Amino acid sequence: MSDGTTARRHGTYGDGVANFLSRWQFRIEWGQCDPAGIVFNSRFFEFFDWGTWTLFARALGVKPADFAAAFGIAGIPVVDASAQFLAPARFGDVVELTSQIIEFRPASFEVEHRLIVHDALAVEGRETRIWAARDIADPPQITAEPVPEAVIACLRTQ
Amino acid sequence: MSDGTTARRHGTYGDGVANFLSRWQFRIEWGQCDPAGIVFNSRFFEFFDWGTWTLFARALGVKPADFAAAFGIAGIPVVDASAQFLAPARFGDVVELTSQIIEFRPASFEVEHRLIVHDALAVEGRETRIWAARDIADPPQITAEPVPEAVIACLRTQ
Amino acid sequence: MSDGTTARRHGTYGDGVANFLSRWQFRIEWGQCDPAGIVFNSRFFEFFDWGTWTLFARALGVKPADFAAAFGIAGIPVVDASAQFLAPARFGDVVELTSQIIEFRPASFEVEHRLIVHDALAVEGRETRIWAARDIADPPQITAEPVPEAVIACLRTQ
Amino acid sequence: MSDGTTARRHGTYGDGVANFLSRWQFRIEWGQCDPAGIVFNSRFFEFFDWGTWTLFARALGVKPADFAAAFGIAGIPVVDASAQFLAPARFGDVVELTSQIIEFRPASFEVEHRLIVHDALAVEGRETRIWAARDIADPPQITAEPVPEAVIACLRTQ
Repeated sequence: MSDGTTARRHGTYGDGVANFLSRWQFRIEWGQCDPAGIVFNSRFFEFFDWGTWTLFARALGVKPADFAAAFGIAGIPVVDASAQFLAPARFGDVVELTSQIIEFRPASFEVEHRLIVHDALAVEGRETRIWAARDIADPPQITAEPVPEAVIACLRTQ
Repeated sequence: MSDGTTARRHGTYGDGVANFLSRWQFRIEWGQCDPAGIVFNSRFFEFFDWGTWTLFARALGVKPADFAAAFGIAGIPVVDASAQFLAPARFGDVVELTSQIIEFRPASFEVEHRLIVHDALAVEGRETRIWAARDIADPPQITAEPVPEAVIACLRTQ
Repeated sequence: MSDGTTARRHGTYGDGVANFLSRWQFRIEWGQCDPAGIVFNSRFFEFFDWGTWTLFARALGVKPADFAAAFGIAGIPVVDASAQFLAPARFGDVVELTSQIIEFRPASFEVEHRLIVHDALAVEGRETRIWAARDIADPPQITAEPVPEAVIACLRTQ
Repeated sequence: MSDGTTARRHGTYGDGVANFLSRWQFRIEWGQCDPAGIVFNSRFFEFFDWGTWTLFARALGVKPADFAAAFGIAGIPVVDASAQFLAPARFGDVVELTSQIIEFRPASFEVEHRLIVHDALAVEGRETRIWAARDIADPPQITAEPVPEAVIACLRTQ
């Protein structure tokens, strides 16, 4: 959602391989907050989605809108999402979201999102997504395929 | 958005013809309200959209999801929208939205929405929509066509 | 969000005690769906919030807007939320959401939400919420307290 | 919503006085688009709200969250909003929103928003807002006051 963001390669996970980390700063808006004056929980899942698209766009150099066509897939739908809300984010807060793929599995991959507010971790989230190919035998249907090696390579840090 | 709504035929406009009036009651939710404790203005435009689809579904007996296919059109996109906010709606308020087409024009039609909160008019809105046919010479493009007479007849009160 | 909903007492959990089950039907709206034509994942967390407020309103007979004042608390904020997306919900689908508290813990409680689309379970969600009292020593802060026994009693099925 | 935005002073209106113009670039996100693949109309009103807060923050040097307290008011609520949708904005489009106050009236002020997509005007919007003081005789109520001269001065271009 921003032009003025930065990204850097960072992070080490279980397999000892560091994956690309996308970092994105933005301001919390009035309409994203509820009567308690804090961001309504569903909005964080919007932020996570933005974070994932930003991550792929940067790592692969493919625009979000061209992504499905570029890889011949139906998309990368979320099949599981979760978040822990540790501290609130308020109207006007400038926050930082970091997004990183933390695991590639045979039929899904896991994206971790961390939202930093005033230098402290405020929300920690996970999305499980699938690399959704169209089912050739039944086109409207989709099937989960492994993320291609070439895509994984772009998401790895050398 | 509700099963428990009622509709009745009502309303007389400039041309002396009464159009179908759709009436729909719902409750204002926490996530629709902002830090001032009132519904954030953009949400009313969501309500208007819901109101228009409900109006067409009831008057024509066609499900919203089947609408475009049933009439061979691309859709009924909004080209102009406006609202006056006269009084706030708050979390938990049970409100009533009435929606009615108030004018059919050669290349558009006008839907009026009125939101009643605690027996008083709280928001008055308008959507200008087009009956959007696909442009045969250039398929991704759309062209505004008159609303078919058979559709208008269903929206009129005898 | 609806007047025309029904509720019934149902469900048995680990402790052998059945809790109140709130059942709520509504229609999926155009603005809740994404370019894939299905409900965008963050919207389901809005539905869960609606489901929890509806559950409390019905079980306790207290309006959502009066809830915090009636029990002298700051609110019932979500500290953890998750969902599994098993099947899509599409524009115009009439869906049913069931919401039920499945566990009362010393410092939190767990609400389970199940969204049924075309007679099949489409989304399964969880919210961990706290019964948030204002911290007397530091008023803007909140502390998690046990849900009062009188409240639990209303949420139990006799 | 972005750090990487720029602002410049620009624009001349009826009274021959140019007002501060705030310019803000951002990317259209998946969850902001509907099944037609374009931004759902209510989302533009969120963008307008963001534009107005950005405009005030830049012109006055006051953070959005401190705004009401800094000026001793209840807020700057929208009493009227409208938009014309001339061309669609799609997922991944990098768009530019310009926001500018175009009229100060005794009991309200008018903000104009213009959204540029692919170098063409796609949406033109207006918000009528009030400078809302708390009614001293009846505190929960608000009254519309003129925007203070010192504030107007900051919004003018020398």
